[in-house]
Amino acid sequence: VPLRHDFRPGVPDVTLFPRGAWSGALRRTLREAPDVALGYGDPHGAAELRGALSSYLGRVRGVVADPSQILICTGFAQGLGLLCRSLRAAGVERVAVEDPTHPGQRAIIAHAGLLAVPVPVDEDGLRVDALAHSGAQAVLVTPAHQFPSGVVLAPARRAALIAWVRHRNAVVIEDDYDAEYRYDRAPVGALQGLAPDHVVYAGSASKTLAPALRLGWMVAPARLVEALAAAKHHDDLGSPTLEQLAFARFLEAGHLDHHLRRARAIYRSRRDGLVRSLARQAPAVRVQGIAAGLHAVVRLPDSTDEVAVVAAAKERGVGVYGISEYALDCAHPPALVLGYAALTESAIAAGIATLARVL
Amino acid sequence: VPLRHDFRPGVPDVTLFPRGAWSGALRRTLREAPDVALGYGDPHGAAELRGALSSYLGRVRGVVADPSQILICTGFAQGLGLLCRSLRAAGVERVAVEDPTHPGQRAIIAHAGLLAVPVPVDEDGLRVDALAHSGAQAVLVTPAHQFPSGVVLAPARRAALIAWVRHRNAVVIEDDYDAEYRYDRAPVGALQGLAPDHVVYAGSASKTLAPALRLGWMVAPARLVEALAAAKHHDDLGSPTLEQLAFARFLEAGHLDHHLRRARAIYRSRRDGLVRSLARQAPAVRVQGIAAGLHAVVRLPDSTDEVAVVAAAKERGVGVYGISEYALDCAHPPALVLGYAALTESAIAAGIATLARVL
Repeated sequence: VPLRHDFRPGVPDVTLFPRGAWSGALRRTLREAPDVALGYGDPHGAAELRGALSSYLGRVRGVVADPSQILICTGFAQGLGLLCRSLRAAGVERVAVEDPTHPGQRAIIAHAGLLAVPVPVDEDGLRVDALAHSGAQAVLVTPAHQFPSGVVLAPARRAALIAWVRHRNAVVIEDDYDAEYRYDRAPVGALQGLAPDHVVYAGSASKTLAPALRLGWMVAPARLVEALAAAKHHDDLGSPTLEQLAFARFLEAGHLDHHLRRARAIYRSRRDGLVRSLARQAPAVRVQGIAAGLHAVVRLPDSTDEVAVVAAAKERGVGVYGISEYALDCAHPPALVLGYAALTESAIAAGIATLARVL
Repeated sequence: VPLRHDFRPGVPDVTLFPRGAWSGALRRTLREAPDVALGYGDPHGAAELRGALSSYLGRVRGVVADPSQILICTGFAQGLGLLCRSLRAAGVERVAVEDPTHPGQRAIIAHAGLLAVPVPVDEDGLRVDALAHSGAQAVLVTPAHQFPSGVVLAPARRAALIAWVRHRNAVVIEDDYDAEYRYDRAPVGALQGLAPDHVVYAGSASKTLAPALRLGWMVAPARLVEALAAAKHHDDLGSPTLEQLAFARFLEAGHLDHHLRRARAIYRSRRDGLVRSLARQAPAVRVQGIAAGLHAVVRLPDSTDEVAVVAAAKERGVGVYGISEYALDCAHPPALVLGYAALTESAIAAGIATLARVL
C-alpha cells in the first residue's frame, strides 16, 4: 500500500527550503570566488565556512569552536564514520550509545570496528550511572533532544556526564541534530560549550535545510582534529568546495536564521496540530518528551501491541514507526515515533484520525 | 622559496572553468528540481546524472554503461576506496598497480587493506606478462594515457590484458583520468567497452572541469554495483544531489563538450610551447609519451642526477617533479614529470629557461 501520510521521523519539510536564497549564494560564489577555490581543497573544509560556522555555532548553540577545530563532512553520517575510525586508531574499542537510538548510527559505529554498547535512557536522558559501568571510552548522545525518545538531558545528568568524561578522559560525541527547533523556550546550549576538550560536537544542514545538501560539520578537541582531517583526506580528499563557500555566504547573510524562524513557526503549528488531534481522537495516548524537533513520541496504553498498530496503520496508508524499531537491549513500553514536520496540518489530522481508528 | 612557476602534474587550468554555464545549470536546477530531490538521495547517485553520463561516456569514450551500473562518488579518490573495500570483501587480496604510478592511489589501496603489487610499465604500457605472474586478482591501469609515464597501452597489450582478466575472472580498474585531452588524434576508446563484465571504468570532473567539484563516477559490472552502493551508503549516504542534477543539465546542454573543445586547444598550445622551449633550450632532453593530457614526461640524459635537478629548480622558484617520486619497485631512467596545463605559454617558457640553466 503506498502511504498517503508518512510520519517518518527526522525528515524536514523540504518544500520550505529557501531555493532562491541558496541559488543566490551559489551564484555569488561562482561570480566572486578566487580561482584557487576551484582546485583541490583543504580536507578540513573551506576556511570561509569554518569561520562562518564558528560564529554561528557560538551564537546559536554556545559552542566554543575555533575554526581550526572544525571539520566539514558529507553529512553527520560521514563525520561519525571518520570519528569512529579515528577513535579506534587511538585505542577506543567501546562506544556507548543511547537506548533507544538511531539504528543507522549504531551501524556506522559497528562498521568502523567498534562495539556499540547500549546505555538506557529515562525521562532525564542518558543514565550516566549505567554509562559509568559500561566500560565505554566514548559515548554518542543527543542531549538537546534525545533521539528518538524526545527527552532533554536533565541538568544533573549533564553535570554527571561532564564529570564522567573528564574523570575517564573519554570522548562525548554530541549529536546536535535538531536543536534549532524548540518551541516552548530557548533550547538548552550545547554540552560542548561546557567541556570543549572532551566533546566532539556534530551538526548538519540535513534537518535545518535539506538532506540533499550533504553538509555536516564536527567541532573536535584539538588533539583529534588532525586525525579526523587525515581520515577525511583518505576518504574523498575533502568535500565539494563551492557549496561550502555558498553555505558560508548563506550563514553570514542571515539566511539560515531567517529560514529557521519561518520553519520553526510552521513546525510548531504542526506539532500543536498533532497534539490536538491526538487529544481529541486518541485520548488514551500520551505525548512524551519536550516540544521540540521534527518528531514526537506517543506513548500507547501498556497493553497495546505496538507492532500490530504499526502494521495496521501502514495497511491503511499511514506510516507510523514503533519505538521498538529503535530499541537495542532495553524493553520500551509501547510507543510510536511520529515525524510531523514534513506533513501539512490537514495531513496530520487525517493521519491521526486513521491511527485513532486503528487504536 | 615560493614557486613562481609550478609544473605540478595533473592540475587543470581552473581559470578556464565555465563559471557562467555552471552557475546557470545550478540556477535552473534550483528552480526546476522537484522537492523530492532535496531529501536523502539514492546512494547510487541521482538518476538524471547517471542517465546523462551513460550517454556521454558511450558517445565520447565508447563505454558500455547502463545507468544502473553507474555509481556517483566524491571524486575518483572516494570511488577507488569504495571499490577496494568491495573487492576485499569479495576475497581479493592483491591489486596490481602500474610502476610508476600515482602514490595517492597506492595509499588508498593499502588503506583498504589490500596489497598493491607493482607491475612494470614500458613504452607499450603495462607489462601484461608480468601482471600474469603477479598473483593479483585486480589491476589498476591508465590505458589511454599512462600516469605518469605518458605512454598509451598498445593494441596487443590491450588484447592481452582483456585475455588475462577474462581467463583469471579478475577485475580491471580503468582510471580514465584525462582521456578527453588528446592532441594528435582521436583518443583510443575505453577498455571497458571491450570487456564490460570485467572492467570497472572510472572518471571524474577533476581534470576536465575543476577538482573542487569532487564529482566522480564509476561504471561497474552488474555483480559489483550493489556492493559499491552499499559501501557508498555506509560512508556518507550518497553525494550531494543538487550538483549532480546541475552536472546532468550541464552535460546534456553540451557545455562539457564546448568547454573541452576550448580547453583542448589551449592545452595543446601549451604543450607545443613546452616541447618547443625544451627543443631550443635543453636539446639533450627528450619528450616521451603521447601528445595528450595535462603533463609531459621529459627524459633526462642518463648521467643526470634527477633529484638534484628537482631540488635546484625548486630553489630557483620552478616546481618540477621527478619520475622517481612515482616509482615503486622499478628503477626508472632519470626523467621529469611536467604538468603544463595550468601554466600560460610565457610561464612555461620562463620555467623551461630556468630548468635549462639548472640542467
